[in-house]
Formats: sequence, C-alpha cells, structure tokens
Amino acid sequence: MSDQLAIGIDIGGTKVAGGLVDVDGNITHRARRDTPHRSKSPAVVEDTIVEVVAELLQVVGSGTVAAVGIGAAGFVAADRATVVFAPHLSWRHEPLQEALQKRIAAPIFVDNDANAAAWAEWKFGAAQGETHLMMITLGTGIGGGILINGEVQRGRFGIAGEFGHMQIVPGGHRCECGNRGCWEQYASGNALVREARSLFSASSPIASDLFDRAGGVPGNLTGPLITQAAQDGDPTARELLSEIGNWLGLGIANLAAVFDPGTFVIGGGLSAAGDLLLASARETFKRQLTGRGYRPEARIVAAELGNDAGLIGAADLARSGVQPAIG
Amino acid sequence: MSDQLAIGIDIGGTKVAGGLVDVDGNITHRARRDTPHRSKSPAVVEDTIVEVVAELLQVVGSGTVAAVGIGAAGFVAADRATVVFAPHLSWRHEPLQEALQKRIAAPIFVDNDANAAAWAEWKFGAAQGETHLMMITLGTGIGGGILINGEVQRGRFGIAGEFGHMQIVPGGHRCECGNRGCWEQYASGNALVREARSLFSASSPIASDLFDRAGGVPGNLTGPLITQAAQDGDPTARELLSEIGNWLGLGIANLAAVFDPGTFVIGGGLSAAGDLLLASARETFKRQLTGRGYRPEARIVAAELGNDAGLIGAADLARSGVQPAIG
Repeated sequence: MSDQLAIGIDIGGTKVAGGLVDVDGNITHRARRDTPHRSKSPAVVEDTIVEVVAELLQVVGSGTVAAVGIGAAGFVAADRATVVFAPHLSWRHEPLQEALQKRIAAPIFVDNDANAAAWAEWKFGAAQGETHLMMITLGTGIGGGILINGEVQRGRFGIAGEFGHMQIVPGGHRCECGNRGCWEQYASGNALVREARSLFSASSPIASDLFDRAGGVPGNLTGPLITQAAQDGDPTARELLSEIGNWLGLGIANLAAVFDPGTFVIGGGLSAAGDLLLASARETFKRQLTGRGYRPEARIVAAELGNDAGLIGAADLARSGVQPAIG
Repeated sequence: MSDQLAIGIDIGGTKVAGGLVDVDGNITHRARRDTPHRSKSPAVVEDTIVEVVAELLQVVGSGTVAAVGIGAAGFVAADRATVVFAPHLSWRHEPLQEALQKRIAAPIFVDNDANAAAWAEWKFGAAQGETHLMMITLGTGIGGGILINGEVQRGRFGIAGEFGHMQIVPGGHRCECGNRGCWEQYASGNALVREARSLFSASSPIASDLFDRAGGVPGNLTGPLITQAAQDGDPTARELLSEIGNWLGLGIANLAAVFDPGTFVIGGGLSAAGDLLLASARETFKRQLTGRGYRPEARIVAAELGNDAGLIGAADLARSGVQPAIG
C-alpha cells in the first residue's frame, strides 16, 4: 500500500540519509546527500532535505506518502517543529517544519534522532512490547530517548533524553557542551578513540598492534578500527572497549535510579562492538545498581536496526502522528 | 463532604503520621505513633498502621472514607501493593496492601513517600499546573518523584525516582545502599551534618559558633541546628549549606539532562533552609545545565506543604485511584 509509506530523513553530522519506509519498518528505497557544512545557512540544509524528499517521491509519485519525519541530532522543541539547537549544523531556534512545509506537501514532523531510534527499536526492533524503554545511542557522543507505553517522552521543553550530558566525573574531561565530566566523554566512540590515542602519545608498547593498524598515524584511529582489532583478539583494544563498557554500565545504573526502565537498548555506531562492550556494561550495571539484590533489574540489549534506526523511526513516528493516514 | 475524606499515612524512620485529608488537601484530623524498630516483624508495623487508621475512623465513623493511602520510605512495586524493600523497616517483598486490606474496609494503596509528596505539591502546592515535574525530598537521604501530566511515573518495576542514588563522584563517600559517591551523600541532611562534624574533627576555628551551639558534642549537630545557625548569620553554617546547594544544583542539572522537566520542587526537612540552600543550587544548576543559553530552563522552587506533603499526597493519590469515591 503505497499510501501508507512514509519518508524518513536522518540528518547527521556528515550525511543526510533518506528512505521510504513501509508500515512494517522496511526501507523500500533510499536516497542520500552529504550534510552541508555548518558554516552554510539553514536554507542550504533545507534545500538538501527537499532534494532527498523529491528523489524519493519520484519513486512512488507525489502525494502518496503519509508523512515526512525528520530526525535531527540536536535539541528539538516539544512542538516537533523547531530545532532549538544543533551542534553540527547552523540551526538555532530554527522553524524547520514551517520552512519545509512550504515546499513539501506531506505533513512534516521533526524529532530528535535518538527519540526516533528509540521509537524504531520499540516498534520494530529490540524492545518490542516494552512498556518502559530507555534508548542509548553511542556515536561520537551519547544520545538518548525515553518511551513509556509507546509514547516518546520529550520533557517539558522537548530536550529530555540528553543522557550524555549527565556529569559523572566532577572536574573530568571537557565536553563540547561546555561542561566537564559529561558521561559522553567516558562512554562514547570519541572517548574510545581519545583513550587509544593517549596510548599512542604515551608510546605504550601495549598499543603496538593498534599502532600498526593505524599506520602509525593517530588520526587514523577510529571506533570501527579499534572495534575490528578487538574482534581480531587484540587485548589492548578489548581492554579499551571493556573500560568504555564499564563507564556505560555506570551511567546506565544512574538512569535506572532515575527512571527504572525495563529495557535499555544500546544503539549507535559503537554498539557494533556487541558483547565486547556490553559484557562489561552489564557487569558494572549489576554492581552499581542501587538496591541490587532486592529488586528486579532491567535488561541491557543491543539495538537491532543498526544505523537505520533513526531513519525508520523518524518515518514511522511521523506516520503515527497523522490520523488518519493521508493518501 | 465526609464521604470524600481520605486517610493518609506517612511511614517514616521515626514516626507513623496519619491524617484525614479533605478534597482540598486540608488535614482535618491527625493521629501518630512511633515507628516500630526495624528489628520488629512486619506485623508490628501493620498493627501500628491499623491503630492509626482506627483512631482516625473513630472521628468520622467507619465506612466514610474513600480510601487509605500509605506513603512509605522505600521501594514500592508498580502494583502499589507490595513494599519491595524499605531500609528503615523489616519489609522485604512485603505484601502490605493484602495484609492491611484484611483489617481495613476502605481501598488501600501503597506508594513511595516521595511519589506521594510529588503528587501533593502538584495537586495542592508549589507545582500546580506543571506538566513535567520532578520532586526532590531532602532528608537524611534524597527521595524523588516524577509526574507527567498528573500521572505518577513509577517506572517498569515501581522504583523510579531514586535520584539520591545516582553516582556523581566516582570512588566518593560510601552510601547506605552499598555504592560509593551517591548524590545523597553530597546533597542531603546527612551530608550537611557529616561536613559540619568533620570541621569539629579538624578542630577548625571557623566552626566555633557551631561548636558552641552543639555544646561541644558532635552528636548534637543536626540539620535544623546548622540551618538555624545559618539563619542567624553564622558564616560557616551558611557556607556549609551553600556547598550542599552546589551539589544539589549539579544533580538537578543531571536530572534536567535526562528528563527535562519544567519544575523541580525541593522538599523534605532540609528544604526549610530555603534560599540559604536554593540560591546556590540555582546558581550551580544554571552553570551546569547542558545547552544553557540555547534552551528554556526549569524553575527550582521550594515545596509548600512541608512535612505534610507525604501524608496529604498518600491520601489524595489513594482517593484518585478510587472511581467513583466509595461512600
């Protein structure tokens, strides 16, 4: 049923990924562009979004999609229309929905990318049937989403789920947000790479395998490279991932103290490390959970939809906001 | 209308306080007993609750209250019937509702005491009209409650709102919960007293006023004594409260990152210090809030219902669970 297709757009720091998403969460067609540099005006990003949407509409014909959902890495206001702040783009209180709605016929909804991913994992992925879900996306930073009984919790101003900016180490590493000791400085892909590079700086012999893989260039160290080394059995890479996992488990215990969900879903690029990361996260969580031994404990599971979660979620969340579906 | 009265029972570490609460949140009659020591069996505490309820029913006649609400300092399961764990009592997976329902005719609901206080402040106190509320109760520890659109958020297992057990200092002070560095070790009445006593231990001259007030006995130092000294202008007492306020503001910034409420209500015994505590909390919050300057900010306000919040909230929350009110 083409009239139940929705378009999802995932705006990341490097690419704008779009897709047609059917009611079962399958992506039937894709389109993508590079994300315009943040020095460009908001209109340039809007042009890019309109291009991606137009390309997808050519596949099925204009007027045949139920809705367009935009998932953006940034603070999105609770009205699902305005991007309050996006670190990787030039948006500041940008009325994105209004601007796009002039150029796109289908109803448009804007959401935080991790909220969209949470929705996708709840509807089609690792957390189906869960009443109380916390989604944690591990990329360069940490994103988050909260779902209660299938409703995205956006908070009073739309900015709920910024888990990465809990301070967990007073006076700790400086964060892009301006604070020190934010969780995402300890449990993200960036943290992993920083720690590996610091081994290079220290000329530590335990980093020789990583050093060779990176061709001796610290700038070549990336999360995927370190993850691959760990999967190949490199003990240092495994240790690095395990340390990140410990910090992850600690923050998860904090989130459980606040909100007591039934399931934590761990997504984002770094989650590709699987149990190399999650085993130590689970262990630390069990050791740090307040009241452990006297209470039920949340499960910690890997996301199932990979990098597509944001796109699928944005599309389906937008479709769910349209009653009835527009043909 | 006596048939719309409800009974609220607040079970604390030292006393069981009960009251008849009308639909406007007024307490029309009170009764109280000492809390049985935690070495006593659960049945002894139940006897005490039944006694308090019976005393209150004598005032208005049996069969005339809509419901009985029990607020307990502990983990209460999401079924509002079972106390999973209560640190100050002997309850472990105690089916409190079932046990009491055999002896009390009116419908009984059990809630965490801070959840009850949150409800009371939302319905009758400092947070009326707020859609997204986080309540923080500062006593010997830190309790918490979350309300979204007038619904208490209990989490998947009923244990949401244990804000005091977020770890905010790795390797920090040991907490009763078994962990280290829990927020309540830094921003509670116990933390205040511990810091003041450590000044005594260090024989610091800046504590001479506090020393005199306590008659030279560290064990005489209490939160109310320190608060009174601060209100009288003692600079050391003011500094101690201000430091506690800083830790309070830091934790509030963390909670805002997770949940983005519109209002934080600060209650519990320590909140009697008012702006001596809250001024520094607000200042630190504004300095620690992620995305500050680009987003709306929650307000931080003092609770209005004082020590009665738990009792009033337990009664009214129980009444709200009965449809229609039972005559």
